[in-house]
Amino acid sequence: MSDVAPPPCSFLAPPPAGVFSPHGPSLSLTCRPAAMLDEAVGLGAVTVLGVLEQAYFSLQVIYARRKYSVSPPCISGPPEFERIFRAQANCSEYFPIFITILWTSGVFFSQGLSSLCGLLYLYGRLCYFWGYAESAQGR
Amino acid sequence: MSDVAPPPCSFLAPPPAGVFSPHGPSLSLTCRPAAMLDEAVGLGAVTVLGVLEQAYFSLQVIYARRKYSVSPPCISGPPEFERIFRAQANCSEYFPIFITILWTSGVFFSQGLSSLCGLLYLYGRLCYFWGYAESAQGR
Amino acid sequence: MSDVAPPPCSFLAPPPAGVFSPHGPSLSLTCRPAAMLDEAVGLGAVTVLGVLEQAYFSLQVIYARRKYSVSPPCISGPPEFERIFRAQANCSEYFPIFITILWTSGVFFSQGLSSLCGLLYLYGRLCYFWGYAESAQGR
Ligand SMILES: N[C@@H](CCC(=O)N[C@@H](CS)C(=O)NCC(=O)O)C(=O)O
Ligand SMILES: N[C@@H](CCC(=O)N[C@@H](CS)C(=O)NCC(=O)O)C(=O)O
Ligand SMILES: N[C@@H](CCC(=O)N[C@@H](CS)C(=O)NCC(=O)O)C(=O)O
Repeated sequence: MSDVAPPPCSFLAPPPAGVFSPHGPSLSLTCRPAAMLDEAVGLGAVTVLGVLEQAYFSLQVIYARRKYSVSPPCISGPPEFERIFRAQANCSEYFPIFITILWTSGVFFSQGLSSLCGLLYLYGRLCYFWGYAESAQGR
Repeated sequence: MSDVAPPPCSFLAPPPAGVFSPHGPSLSLTCRPAAMLDEAVGLGAVTVLGVLEQAYFSLQVIYARRKYSVSPPCISGPPEFERIFRAQANCSEYFPIFITILWTSGVFFSQGLSSLCGLLYLYGRLCYFWGYAESAQGR
Repeated sequence: MSDVAPPPCSFLAPPPAGVFSPHGPSLSLTCRPAAMLDEAVGLGAVTVLGVLEQAYFSLQVIYARRKYSVSPPCISGPPEFERIFRAQANCSEYFPIFITILWTSGVFFSQGLSSLCGLLYLYGRLCYFWGYAESAQGR
């Protein structure tokens, strides 16, 4: 985009700041919606990764339901099933909190740092899930 | 808005792009927050519909608790109750994932397509809930 | 910001509205992303408060698990534990709905009113949790 020469000032130029602003006169900053989205792309990517992780957890529960013949609406069964079921339930419970913190801190503070912490969290959750599925020790 | 003649270029006109931009010189695009919201109105409508659907599911659980006399904190009871309870729990589990996908795809890709898929998902969920409440066959 | 004198109109001034707009000619409004964030700061604050409340509820369940020796993946135990467990589960279930309503109404309607209702909701949830932990009467 930067190599397109901006047109000279014209009579169609944006109106002065303050005239249409409901917030009184202020220094008008031009903003670039596309760039704003570009800047949120890291948050978007971590979000998609988080959704995929949740999908993976759900699939594990579905496989466990088949393997241990625990058909819905039953939620109790052999300890192996219950651990996988609870691991997924626990991750689902924290998923909205994770998404909320990711975007709030990403938008108000730093997108890069948020995305990085988000990645670490998702990795931690994967370890939690596998650990819980193995044994409930230390949960 | 389009029939208001924009005022001529004035000394109060927005500063040149690049001067205040932390991202170096670039073609400045003027953006229109109100229009941006207008464009998200489809996503907002599907969101509201989704919330109403969740409210409906919760009400069904409350009615089922009364009908089958399963008072909180109990979560087990006759299969009819357990099916309704699990159907609502399952829908609640996927609700944050639904909202996340709806807005992420709506903002980064196409609002129209997202809203449409969102509507289909909500309809699918309704069928899922009714089907599950009837019988657990095929869940 | 308002005390910085805007530079005079220059040849680098933003291009006329309509030229790059995919939505045809329209009155271009300059927008201020920083100010837009300022305006969402109330919603952000209520969001953070909501997250902290959920963290508090989770901690209560962890303490109750220790106190009544109900180790994961078990979810049944003495009624005192089950009440705290269900109170947290119920609040977690409604948390994504709360966040969704808070931001949808805050962005499309009024930020102030949304934040206020959000605060009231969070206070109501705290009362609900304490009341439920005490006794299941009236849940
Ligand atoms: N929490 C779900 C996770 C997996 C899932 O979504 N399963 C589907 C297909 S087996 C379902 O309808 N589960 C019924 C239920 O959650 O009660 C479960 O326990 O099954
Ligand atoms: N998951 C809820 C859905 C409906 C609901 O929100 N019920 C209210 C009024 S009966 C409640 O406080 N439920 C207690 C609970 O979820 O343990 C339930 O099982 O009851
Ligand atoms: N719903 C959770 C809330 C508290 C929590 O997150 N507990 C951690 C540490 S005890 C956990 O891993 N819980 C296992 C589980 O939810 O099954 C619970 O029932 O424990």
